[in-house]
Amino acid sequence: MSLSEFDLIDTYFKRPARRAAMGVGDDCALLAPAPGCQLAVSTDLLVEGRHFLSTVIPQRLGHKSLAVNLSDLAACGARPLAFTLSLAMPRADAGFIAGFAEGLWALADAHDCDLVGGDTSAGPLTISITVFGEVPTGQALLRDGARDGDDLWVSGTLGDARLALEIFRGHVAAPPGEAFERLRRAMEQPQPRVALGIALRGQASSAIDVSDGLAGDLGHLLRCSGVGARLELASIPRSADLAACPDTLQHECLLHGGDDYELLFTAPPARRAGVQQAAREAGVPVTRIGRIEAAPGLRLVDAGGHIVSFVAQAFDHFRE
Amino acid sequence: MSLSEFDLIDTYFKRPARRAAMGVGDDCALLAPAPGCQLAVSTDLLVEGRHFLSTVIPQRLGHKSLAVNLSDLAACGARPLAFTLSLAMPRADAGFIAGFAEGLWALADAHDCDLVGGDTSAGPLTISITVFGEVPTGQALLRDGARDGDDLWVSGTLGDARLALEIFRGHVAAPPGEAFERLRRAMEQPQPRVALGIALRGQASSAIDVSDGLAGDLGHLLRCSGVGARLELASIPRSADLAACPDTLQHECLLHGGDDYELLFTAPPARRAGVQQAAREAGVPVTRIGRIEAAPGLRLVDAGGHIVSFVAQAFDHFRE
Repeated sequence: MSLSEFDLIDTYFKRPARRAAMGVGDDCALLAPAPGCQLAVSTDLLVEGRHFLSTVIPQRLGHKSLAVNLSDLAACGARPLAFTLSLAMPRADAGFIAGFAEGLWALADAHDCDLVGGDTSAGPLTISITVFGEVPTGQALLRDGARDGDDLWVSGTLGDARLALEIFRGHVAAPPGEAFERLRRAMEQPQPRVALGIALRGQASSAIDVSDGLAGDLGHLLRCSGVGARLELASIPRSADLAACPDTLQHECLLHGGDDYELLFTAPPARRAGVQQAAREAGVPVTRIGRIEAAPGLRLVDAGGHIVSFVAQAFDHFRE
Repeated sequence: MSLSEFDLIDTYFKRPARRAAMGVGDDCALLAPAPGCQLAVSTDLLVEGRHFLSTVIPQRLGHKSLAVNLSDLAACGARPLAFTLSLAMPRADAGFIAGFAEGLWALADAHDCDLVGGDTSAGPLTISITVFGEVPTGQALLRDGARDGDDLWVSGTLGDARLALEIFRGHVAAPPGEAFERLRRAMEQPQPRVALGIALRGQASSAIDVSDGLAGDLGHLLRCSGVGARLELASIPRSADLAACPDTLQHECLLHGGDDYELLFTAPPARRAGVQQAAREAGVPVTRIGRIEAAPGLRLVDAGGHIVSFVAQAFDHFRE
């Protein structure tokens, strides 16, 4: 089945805006952040074979395309408001588009987020979303606020998405059905930590989302803040599935995994109760994994407090 | 020469924000529209071989990628504020990126528009820009305001971009050097009518930019407004280069050309002096090309007022 571009937009992507002043259907959408709020803006690009495998089901791809963007809002403590979607596809295939739209809308609705504009084209499968959120002026969680002595925290568990990728690549044997489906879901259907980001306003001193791997993203945060950190390898939270893997693989997935979409953040020790309260409100576990130190650089330590050497390497789309 | 993703962003695309509250370098940028203003948002996707030819020089591609987005702001009467850029490229080639950035920044600087975020990836050459502008609340030019009796206006001239494309495709012989360069520039380096859009606030009753061809875009405007129009073929402004072509080719380029990025707008006859004054302020010629009528549909008429039949067909990226 083939659809024209205008039919396609109307059928799957045109809905009345609920929170935007004006949504899809004119040259521009119109947005007005609530009084006292700034608009947080972020954009992510997903390319077939780079950010997702061609085996992903369309519903999960629709979900993930928006999820990775909402994760950036979460890392700023912003509440989702709206997004735009640009979609290049080899063909206007109704089966694919219907599934993609279903996954996309389910997540958008869960976060009360309007689709306010977009563009479609024939071309290699590529998805570009720009997302808008509201954050009270001066309350955004930034990367530059980590201070000597702050605790280093992370939400959820890390490394499952990378473990799933290694299984798909054939580098690691697939575990039995249930476990494989859990790992695959971590890779294909990440949950953006929006509620946690909002709850951490006023508690966290800095935050970033873990999209390129813990070591790399922590490196960004440390450089922006002009500090260093001691990271406790044994404290990094991991699933039972990953914990069952050999140490080398575990460490690779935990430190350089990418696609985790958990929040990595810092807060003064005096805020521990506040952070735990925020985590309970958001329904997301958080774990202390280290401490910010004045000396620049990232020091990875084992359970005995000894330095472990590792190569810090964020995921680079032009190298891998 | 190969560059890593982070070097690439830092070298070519990271500049201090001047008008955004916070620009590139955190999970989100922060924007705050001026008091009394709404934020106008639009997004356009450019795919190699669909929206530009591989022969385009990188400077012009950088210009055009932003220009087509600014044109959407112009059609709403919004003043540019900021944009995000997502860029997929087969390789991180410094020569290409430097040229692309040069063309992009030249146009961004001309419109005092901050780059506030982005993403890069390896992949087939694809450019996705989302642009943000400010417009006083309630003053945006929309598609739904055309009324029976309004004049129909268009800025500049139409059809040159399509004529250039037909030459590149080998369907039309190239004119001598000077003329070919003019036509090619119309296709590769369109000028968004930002100043005109702003000057038309309070004068125009509706507006749209001509990106998919006059007939198709006029059709959108008429459907949104619930009206029809009489369009005078002989009045449609065209360059001397296009006027020298056979009638059939002229009409195809004028009506179904696409890539014009002129403003098509309506205004009551009582506003003619105001429209002309807006055009003088903006330094862009405008021409009356017809009249809005109550009866739905588009009626194309020749110089004698007789109906000319034609097939209304907007450019469809999945059909052409």
